[in-house]
Amino acid sequence: MMLTVNAYAATAATQPLTPTTVERRDLAPADVLIDIAYSGICHSDIHTARSEWGQANYPVVPGHEIAGTVREVGSGVTRYAVGDRVGVGCFVDSCRECGPCTAGLEQYCENGFTGTYNAVDRYGQPTNGGYSSAIVVDENYVCRIPDSLELSVAAPLLCAGITLYSPLRHWKAGPGTRVAVIGLGGLGHMGVKLAHAMGAEVTVLSQSLKKMEDGLRLGADHYHATSDPDTFTALAGSFDLILNTVSANLDMSKYMGLLAVDGTLVELGLPEHPIEVPAFSLANNRRSLAGSKIGGIAETQEMLDFCAEHGVGAEIEIIAADAINDAYERVMASDVRYRFVIDAATFDA
Amino acid sequence: MMLTVNAYAATAATQPLTPTTVERRDLAPADVLIDIAYSGICHSDIHTARSEWGQANYPVVPGHEIAGTVREVGSGVTRYAVGDRVGVGCFVDSCRECGPCTAGLEQYCENGFTGTYNAVDRYGQPTNGGYSSAIVVDENYVCRIPDSLELSVAAPLLCAGITLYSPLRHWKAGPGTRVAVIGLGGLGHMGVKLAHAMGAEVTVLSQSLKKMEDGLRLGADHYHATSDPDTFTALAGSFDLILNTVSANLDMSKYMGLLAVDGTLVELGLPEHPIEVPAFSLANNRRSLAGSKIGGIAETQEMLDFCAEHGVGAEIEIIAADAINDAYERVMASDVRYRFVIDAATFDA
Repeated sequence: MMLTVNAYAATAATQPLTPTTVERRDLAPADVLIDIAYSGICHSDIHTARSEWGQANYPVVPGHEIAGTVREVGSGVTRYAVGDRVGVGCFVDSCRECGPCTAGLEQYCENGFTGTYNAVDRYGQPTNGGYSSAIVVDENYVCRIPDSLELSVAAPLLCAGITLYSPLRHWKAGPGTRVAVIGLGGLGHMGVKLAHAMGAEVTVLSQSLKKMEDGLRLGADHYHATSDPDTFTALAGSFDLILNTVSANLDMSKYMGLLAVDGTLVELGLPEHPIEVPAFSLANNRRSLAGSKIGGIAETQEMLDFCAEHGVGAEIEIIAADAINDAYERVMASDVRYRFVIDAATFDA
Repeated sequence: MMLTVNAYAATAATQPLTPTTVERRDLAPADVLIDIAYSGICHSDIHTARSEWGQANYPVVPGHEIAGTVREVGSGVTRYAVGDRVGVGCFVDSCRECGPCTAGLEQYCENGFTGTYNAVDRYGQPTNGGYSSAIVVDENYVCRIPDSLELSVAAPLLCAGITLYSPLRHWKAGPGTRVAVIGLGGLGHMGVKLAHAMGAEVTVLSQSLKKMEDGLRLGADHYHATSDPDTFTALAGSFDLILNTVSANLDMSKYMGLLAVDGTLVELGLPEHPIEVPAFSLANNRRSLAGSKIGGIAETQEMLDFCAEHGVGAEIEIIAADAINDAYERVMASDVRYRFVIDAATFDA
């Protein structure tokens, strides 16, 4: 009786992803069955598929930037109806009882949220993500995608978008604040668009000036090359908030020096090795080095509504399912402007 | 015409401090001449005297925890009169024009404040600190010590006190907040007293339980040994604010795990090597690793008034000037409960 759907899965850390099928559970009362239209490719997908963030439980069907349409609803569903345009992000369940969960901060669930893939759900079954043609998710972990947002450009908002939106809101980006975004990739380009839409003064700090034209078009007010040592002297003490989207380990003593009094640098790129930061660079100007993890369900909905209102979507390149492995290589080479999105129709081709 | 006063100075990184004299400038209109009663010994004094924080400009007269009485005032002084009880902390001047200075955050002066010792003042003369019988300071960098505070227990408040008070206020310690203090030394014992006086729930995290009785007497609600691995599992995610007063490099991945959602660990001990912190330990619970540097003049005054109101002073051991070198060794061995204070009368003995 379960639904069998086409998907792409990683079967080992060193093997390419291959076509397969996965089963989706029968609808529990609160579940919705979503026909996936588009699924973004996130750097985390690659880390997990390759067991770079701990041993994965293969087969793994990645994908946590999901946009689609409700095909069917469970008997108790109240928030969604057949045909609704919806999105699913990085998690599909959480304990719903701890302090963070009841505060709408499910991303910090004390009992650990249930990842959209490579996790085990409350029924004891492995979760499989968005690289597939359909998915079943509890309606409480589903967001509505406003009509004015194309599903294709909305998909990456479910991870890349909320990952930048949440810290921008938490650290109060807006008119009068000076925000820098390190790295103009999948995460960074969302940071530029969102910070600009919030009214902040936005600076891109990129290794070179190669993508400068793009950066300014996406909403940056300034663009500087971090390969130029002058950048760090010219911009010393001049940012209230820096969002670091680069996953390589940077020289933090240089970047912390760019923060003004009470400034915060938020790590979003999750580098492999510990971040090294000199104590003096924190004490000077009362600086903070912080982290942030995606966002809660309510905040993800708020972000989607904000994006619709401000006409913000991801810059994407749509690919077919059989191009996933090539896309992974191009993501690793930073050769994408700025997010790959899989056309989910091609899983059934 | 300049005033010559007795003092103790470091003359080289590897030599003991020795008796000497220094000259204090003639009073400018805004200056006050202070007869020093007590001068605290801060770990920073030792770092500077030994050129551990960069090459010092010898001779160095340390001391930036100064309490005394006004002996004479300049022609334009409005805030103090002869006989007033006053204190001087870590700096004696700043640019007074930058954003931080005009916001009362002189400790973050964009042009660099003038340290109480081992700096150069606006007249081009080296500054000499509190290990002496008198000092001349601009009244705008002098604080009033309320009558109910003994000068001896007030002296350490000018550095150790404000160093803990400022982050406790900035990160909003108070009723309902859970504050941990790492290390029960000169800084840490002030953290316990102040956080307790502010109404927070206070936990001491110390290497052993040796000072537990003291900790509880000073106001801690809980006391745990960090040498016990169970401490880190039992207290995981349970603090809103952790003040780290230890100057050795700790295993931050363990300590960051103790922070609740939106918790902050503030580095006050200024370890020599960069702090290493895993990005995941920041992303989980949206944690921050921050720094903080002493406090501004207005906030230092606020702290002194708060201490008077709540009967908070440092726990001290009073020594004579000729015991400074022994005291330095005992500070290095953590063998002091909890702050040495030099009786400045002994400089003239």
